[in-house]
Amino acid sequence: MTTHRFSPTAFYNTLGSHPPALRIADGDTVIAETVDARGFDRHGNKPGERPNPMTGPFFIEGAEPDDTLVVNIGAIRMTRPTGWTFQVLSPNVVDPGAVSRFPEREKTEWIIDIAANRARLQSPPPSLKDWSVAVEPMIGCFGVAPDMGQAISTATSGRYGGNMDYRGFCTGVDVMFPVSVPGALFYLGDVHAQQCDGEIVGTGIETAAEVTFSVKVVKGKAIGWPRGRNATEIFTVGNARPLDQALQHATTEMLDWLIADYGLDEVAASHIMGQAVRYDIANVFNPAYSVACRIALDALKGVTRYAS
Amino acid sequence: MTTHRFSPTAFYNTLGSHPPALRIADGDTVIAETVDARGFDRHGNKPGERPNPMTGPFFIEGAEPDDTLVVNIGAIRMTRPTGWTFQVLSPNVVDPGAVSRFPEREKTEWIIDIAANRARLQSPPPSLKDWSVAVEPMIGCFGVAPDMGQAISTATSGRYGGNMDYRGFCTGVDVMFPVSVPGALFYLGDVHAQQCDGEIVGTGIETAAEVTFSVKVVKGKAIGWPRGRNATEIFTVGNARPLDQALQHATTEMLDWLIADYGLDEVAASHIMGQAVRYDIANVFNPAYSVACRIALDALKGVTRYAS
Amino acid sequence: MTTHRFSPTAFYNTLGSHPPALRIADGDTVIAETVDARGFDRHGNKPGERPNPMTGPFFIEGAEPDDTLVVNIGAIRMTRPTGWTFQVLSPNVVDPGAVSRFPEREKTEWIIDIAANRARLQSPPPSLKDWSVAVEPMIGCFGVAPDMGQAISTATSGRYGGNMDYRGFCTGVDVMFPVSVPGALFYLGDVHAQQCDGEIVGTGIETAAEVTFSVKVVKGKAIGWPRGRNATEIFTVGNARPLDQALQHATTEMLDWLIADYGLDEVAASHIMGQAVRYDIANVFNPAYSVACRIALDALKGVTRYAS
Amino acid sequence: MTTHRFSPTAFYNTLGSHPPALRIADGDTVIAETVDARGFDRHGNKPGERPNPMTGPFFIEGAEPDDTLVVNIGAIRMTRPTGWTFQVLSPNVVDPGAVSRFPEREKTEWIIDIAANRARLQSPPPSLKDWSVAVEPMIGCFGVAPDMGQAISTATSGRYGGNMDYRGFCTGVDVMFPVSVPGALFYLGDVHAQQCDGEIVGTGIETAAEVTFSVKVVKGKAIGWPRGRNATEIFTVGNARPLDQALQHATTEMLDWLIADYGLDEVAASHIMGQAVRYDIANVFNPAYSVACRIALDALKGVTRYAS
Repeated sequence: MTTHRFSPTAFYNTLGSHPPALRIADGDTVIAETVDARGFDRHGNKPGERPNPMTGPFFIEGAEPDDTLVVNIGAIRMTRPTGWTFQVLSPNVVDPGAVSRFPEREKTEWIIDIAANRARLQSPPPSLKDWSVAVEPMIGCFGVAPDMGQAISTATSGRYGGNMDYRGFCTGVDVMFPVSVPGALFYLGDVHAQQCDGEIVGTGIETAAEVTFSVKVVKGKAIGWPRGRNATEIFTVGNARPLDQALQHATTEMLDWLIADYGLDEVAASHIMGQAVRYDIANVFNPAYSVACRIALDALKGVTRYAS
Repeated sequence: MTTHRFSPTAFYNTLGSHPPALRIADGDTVIAETVDARGFDRHGNKPGERPNPMTGPFFIEGAEPDDTLVVNIGAIRMTRPTGWTFQVLSPNVVDPGAVSRFPEREKTEWIIDIAANRARLQSPPPSLKDWSVAVEPMIGCFGVAPDMGQAISTATSGRYGGNMDYRGFCTGVDVMFPVSVPGALFYLGDVHAQQCDGEIVGTGIETAAEVTFSVKVVKGKAIGWPRGRNATEIFTVGNARPLDQALQHATTEMLDWLIADYGLDEVAASHIMGQAVRYDIANVFNPAYSVACRIALDALKGVTRYAS
Repeated sequence: MTTHRFSPTAFYNTLGSHPPALRIADGDTVIAETVDARGFDRHGNKPGERPNPMTGPFFIEGAEPDDTLVVNIGAIRMTRPTGWTFQVLSPNVVDPGAVSRFPEREKTEWIIDIAANRARLQSPPPSLKDWSVAVEPMIGCFGVAPDMGQAISTATSGRYGGNMDYRGFCTGVDVMFPVSVPGALFYLGDVHAQQCDGEIVGTGIETAAEVTFSVKVVKGKAIGWPRGRNATEIFTVGNARPLDQALQHATTEMLDWLIADYGLDEVAASHIMGQAVRYDIANVFNPAYSVACRIALDALKGVTRYAS
Repeated sequence: MTTHRFSPTAFYNTLGSHPPALRIADGDTVIAETVDARGFDRHGNKPGERPNPMTGPFFIEGAEPDDTLVVNIGAIRMTRPTGWTFQVLSPNVVDPGAVSRFPEREKTEWIIDIAANRARLQSPPPSLKDWSVAVEPMIGCFGVAPDMGQAISTATSGRYGGNMDYRGFCTGVDVMFPVSVPGALFYLGDVHAQQCDGEIVGTGIETAAEVTFSVKVVKGKAIGWPRGRNATEIFTVGNARPLDQALQHATTEMLDWLIADYGLDEVAASHIMGQAVRYDIANVFNPAYSVACRIALDALKGVTRYAS
């Protein structure tokens, strides 16, 4: 149960079978630095390149293909008093006929007031001079090496995780990834100080951070898509285009979860899901969109667990 | 400010320019009975036909094309101790390869315990014998006559409202519809005792009800899609397939709202939306899917209203 | 087997249960005038209104719900030496990031040289001064009254036909529509002198015309979507968004056709379709997109017709 | 201008920066053996693994990032008298409610009569005992190494080519790929003896082959997506889901082509495309669907080439 401090010296723009940056044991904790989506670190230096340069990979001893890697997200500490966003909605989230109403996309700077836990525009338009948002940090891009020897751009996502840009990936969540290679090869980066549903300006408030996480390997348990659990709910994430297909993936993964772990069949699981499911549109910007399918633990009360 | 009691004797399966069932004044309140999605009333009689037989239309005096009709949803009272759902997930919400895992779709009966405000399956599988859900009533299908003399099936939805099946259409919400014909011609029905996001079994818990609503006409204000406001947030609803397009409609409508009513331009509105928007997938079952774009009133704090 | 000449005095912008403009017998032929998509006739007068004002409805004696109406498209004669298009690609058919490269959409006039059977821009840019296109007339919008008493805008389409904008609806084709009301109530209009796949500028070359068609009722045969047959192939048309769903409708309808009329089961029909199907993207502009699924008659050679 | 004969000893299941199997010069020709989609060769041995094991990569001397690689497809010779398909339509190409009508997917064997150039089922159902199809070979999967050091599964496709499964990739076509790495690293395999539009059973008639191709490097010309040219037309291919987005990519690439090479601006190019574009749905089965946007050379007659 060692705690490691890790400051990356190399960054990757693909999730793939790159040489391990650190080998850690099942149960270990890591406090890792991450740079922002364009590679700027806490000091404003630029050791990484866009898109979404990754810290890692971490080789988790004992993780083998068809296991599940559980990553507990601990503290996400802001390490830089600045962040950036784009200043207009992405052209794909408005009606095609409205696209021409927007000026060209530009980076905009934000001030992150770490003490107050608020972020505000550095040069706001007059209408927003008194406006700010809460800092609620989340991990934009993280995951494990994909199967088949693939190395896939950190701009997109898949069964292995990747650039899901889901605000639900925040402190206190256990995230599960399907392991495809020995050691799992876990990567993380692209922290956002805040982000709406859908990441509809194409960014959160992009910044550098220090993320604490710990890992656990569940042997012999294969899952299909990333899953999560927090204090009040369980959720699955599907990544694809259009949103309809991302939703199909997330819904099917939740169905499989309820059947496998709660002793239900397709009909009983449908009854619960049909009254209790909540969906989040995580991002509707990246090459693969992401949809989360959630169920409150409360909604599972009264279920007789045959399996247990 | 009259309060009317209305028990329908005829039902419509299209939203269109049908003869008014009741003429009411701007500001009036109506307590109206509705039957379930297949036409069964509080007594189990079947005065209506599927799909979603509508109570109405109500002719609101003074409402003209390009006005906005505001409908405040008051109490939604359950009038029948039973409801029904389908028992399996709809084939379009799971991976195509998983469709064959489900038995054929069948109606399933639920007991609605009005005193306890809970609903449970009448003949649950053993795994669900102790499982129940809260009753949180909502209106599945409501809206006004569409433009161009159209009469459109209550199975689907559009700018005029219709079968949006959004759990956010519940007690306490002000819903805004764009008026296309004199008198607006407002219809309602298809109440659900409970429903998940997405209406993924193809139904909520379908039942008969008594709905209290009041109307207000905003003269000379034209909106593009249904809007809503409750105690904590404002929202817009877009109806289309795929989800991506429903989201584009809802997002563009929210953009237009912020610009028109909050004195913002495209950039300032984008800044707010980019950190504050929440999306709900209302239904992913009907011919047109529905997506809600929400913004908390809290997230608008600090905005300088030029316009006001 | 009467031949009627029909010059409309009223036009409709919905396909619905409007009063018959002319009653005709099974087997009759009609030579009918149509106006262009904005209501301009052969003389440049404007007796109709946008969108797509319809000539009709024609009440076909003997047609009843669940019959099939077969419309043979005969000559489509250009009656006006001018037409019009939009001058830029529709924003929904290019990458969202490319939308802002185009100027605002404007009507552009074309000269239709009826003798030469060619069309050219009235005021071409220098690069196109020697460029012209063949005149290959087609019917943009036609169909029958939909079910459930609906009246649906001629901007869109459905099982009943409508604004499918398919260049395959041209002289020599037998088109089949599912009948939903007594008399079928057939409408037509919106002739194009030429149109690409997809109708990607949002119009064909829109013009007035005189269309000859004859009708035949197939009693007791219910179909799901419009079908067609020409000298070399059979085809089905599905109308929906996104293209994926329009394709699903057309493919399922072709499957049902092969099974019902060629004595095949799902497997045998799949074998043929899997090597022989051709798809046309009819339009990718209207509220419902249209996809045609085609099979050459040659590809059906050697099929043993159990049913016959 | 050397002609190489190449028999692969290793196969790849990703397009990526693997070590060159053969270095060839700009202008060279290669006669290369390919195995089928599951790795079976001409003798029925299985030296490769699914999915779509690739022959290559071929390092083309002089090719650098932002050049274009032109691959001329010469003879595609069938080397095995057998092939295979799946026997039912893929669940994603029919209405979701029709999926359960099909039996489970199974491989089905075909006889390829090389002399007669026809293919027929080895054990046909009675209805198809006299039915056969023409052999019209095409390359299912080919392309170059993607950018950013990615290695991407041969199940899918992107800007770099890949598993596009387009029947237009046949003898006589010049195919253009955007080069992302030194030497381009060209791969090919997955030949089909026949395939419909859409690859709607999930396969063509999968078989081994011997493909003759020659390469040419166009220096300093960067393209966005695969392009092709044959005796009668030019075309572009977009790869994405849903079909709508694949179509947007292909359409935008064609627009860029016309502007760059034919001296047109957005309006003039739109005029041509708006009357002349044809679309092919190449595949609607793989993780990324593929759509081709075609223009007949005849449709470009009369265009004044400012640029030339």
